[in-house]
Amino acid sequence: MKICIVGCGALGSVIAAHLARLGEIAVYVYDVSEAHMSAIQQHGLRISGAADFTVKVNATSNPREIPRCDFGIFATKSLHTRAAAEQTAHVFGESAPVCSVQNGLGNEEIIAQHIQLVIRGATTLAAHLIAPGHAGLEFYSTLWIGPFEPSGTPYKLVAQLAEIMNYAGLKVVALHDARGAQWTKLIFNSAVNAAGALTRLHHGAATRFAPTAALYEALLEEGEAVAKALGISLHGDPRKMIAEGARHPGKRNVSMLQDVLAKRLTEVDAVNGAIADRGEKLGVPVPLNRALWQLVKGIEHGWADPS
Amino acid sequence: MKICIVGCGALGSVIAAHLARLGEIAVYVYDVSEAHMSAIQQHGLRISGAADFTVKVNATSNPREIPRCDFGIFATKSLHTRAAAEQTAHVFGESAPVCSVQNGLGNEEIIAQHIQLVIRGATTLAAHLIAPGHAGLEFYSTLWIGPFEPSGTPYKLVAQLAEIMNYAGLKVVALHDARGAQWTKLIFNSAVNAAGALTRLHHGAATRFAPTAALYEALLEEGEAVAKALGISLHGDPRKMIAEGARHPGKRNVSMLQDVLAKRLTEVDAVNGAIADRGEKLGVPVPLNRALWQLVKGIEHGWADPS
Repeated sequence: MKICIVGCGALGSVIAAHLARLGEIAVYVYDVSEAHMSAIQQHGLRISGAADFTVKVNATSNPREIPRCDFGIFATKSLHTRAAAEQTAHVFGESAPVCSVQNGLGNEEIIAQHIQLVIRGATTLAAHLIAPGHAGLEFYSTLWIGPFEPSGTPYKLVAQLAEIMNYAGLKVVALHDARGAQWTKLIFNSAVNAAGALTRLHHGAATRFAPTAALYEALLEEGEAVAKALGISLHGDPRKMIAEGARHPGKRNVSMLQDVLAKRLTEVDAVNGAIADRGEKLGVPVPLNRALWQLVKGIEHGWADPS
Repeated sequence: MKICIVGCGALGSVIAAHLARLGEIAVYVYDVSEAHMSAIQQHGLRISGAADFTVKVNATSNPREIPRCDFGIFATKSLHTRAAAEQTAHVFGESAPVCSVQNGLGNEEIIAQHIQLVIRGATTLAAHLIAPGHAGLEFYSTLWIGPFEPSGTPYKLVAQLAEIMNYAGLKVVALHDARGAQWTKLIFNSAVNAAGALTRLHHGAATRFAPTAALYEALLEEGEAVAKALGISLHGDPRKMIAEGARHPGKRNVSMLQDVLAKRLTEVDAVNGAIADRGEKLGVPVPLNRALWQLVKGIEHGWADPS
């Protein structure tokens, strides 16, 4: 069996390394970062933190070097979904399902424009890149996956992917409908990522500080109202996700804060922007998601040194 | 005539230097910054930018060295109003009026606990400290002053102070009721200061970038609704204040962004916090002022390196 991980950032690296460690699956990772791919080719892919091992993985920045695979996992930032789908569509053809494990809304729709069978996914696993070829895993957490409805992906393929990933030591739950899980993660992200990026507080500190905790709660309530108006039943409670992240020791910066500190464009369009757009369309008040979107876009705008 | 400037930051320095330049007034500046006071004693107080001159001023960090004065001007950050009023009350006694030119709500109330005659004030003059003994003046702008109602300050003293300051080259408007002008400035501040501090955009960039401009507008509307519920008629339009600031060339950071970059506690309690508190008490929706207050408090919390 061959599996291709598209986008080998922190999360993609963790998934790829676990699958490769089985020794039974040919794992291919694709990423535009030549330094990261080159380090993996030369020294293997290293994971440290909640797990500690190094494993050989096929790594390339040239999508033409990847053979046809049986499954795909999309782990790029949502900003890069379209380009990555265009570049790797030939790897999956019409029979290999591709699972998004990305943040935000809209990734599956974009992938489905280029690839036949799509699986919806969302995870609260926390990781960060330490150096080329080396990712830090803060803690294992659940990945929820389910068929992307418009692509008609058979549930048995979802269940098969979950089985493989669980066998590899990850924590995957296959669902017939993963929209609720994805919205729960989205709403969680809308609070912790934007507030973390703007305050520069690590996740535990922002969760324990009364003013930011109150802001989290107000953002969760906005997102829940939008989900309800869309007819989506949440799977789990974003408050539990927040508490789970805060229980782990250490000062962990949420991914949007990692992006801001590195002056990388964030995923705010696919998170707070997506909730605000849907809320405004439905007439559900979303002033806080809109405001946090505006502020994070302002941060990004500053990097261009505007006059 | 003797005038004491309490709090000799950027704004206090600009006012003190203009008054001292007349050569007819004994000007005393008081500030806790010994480096700044010492530089002024040794080399005079320098202003550059929209005006360029250096002038001798009596400067001290010891309030006991200041003689009884005829007028006082409070220009500390709102955080330091209470301590400054306690330390300088003896300079003013029961007959010398003291005018707040500070940001935010509540300064006059605190000063009036220690000093008999208080004048309310608000200004959009823009300045920043360049070095000890040296302030940069970006542009002249209006200072509105009026009696602080509970202290029963006679209007003729307000008019006299305005006359002196106008004679010194400043731009002062005496009003029988300055609450509307103060709220206009407050509402202006609630938008430009908090958004600037959070996005790190300079004033012109934040004003011209559509997402932050839309956030400004939403914040102005919240503040205007609170003012209306309090029965306060605005004096002028905060939108014109925003446009005035953006017309001036150069990349000017608003004062709350200057504070954040220097890791100094900000005035967000007296600005967005004050609007949010009053709105929530009156039942006027203020989600954005509350959220921006929460975010800026989060930034400040981070400087303590919380676990």
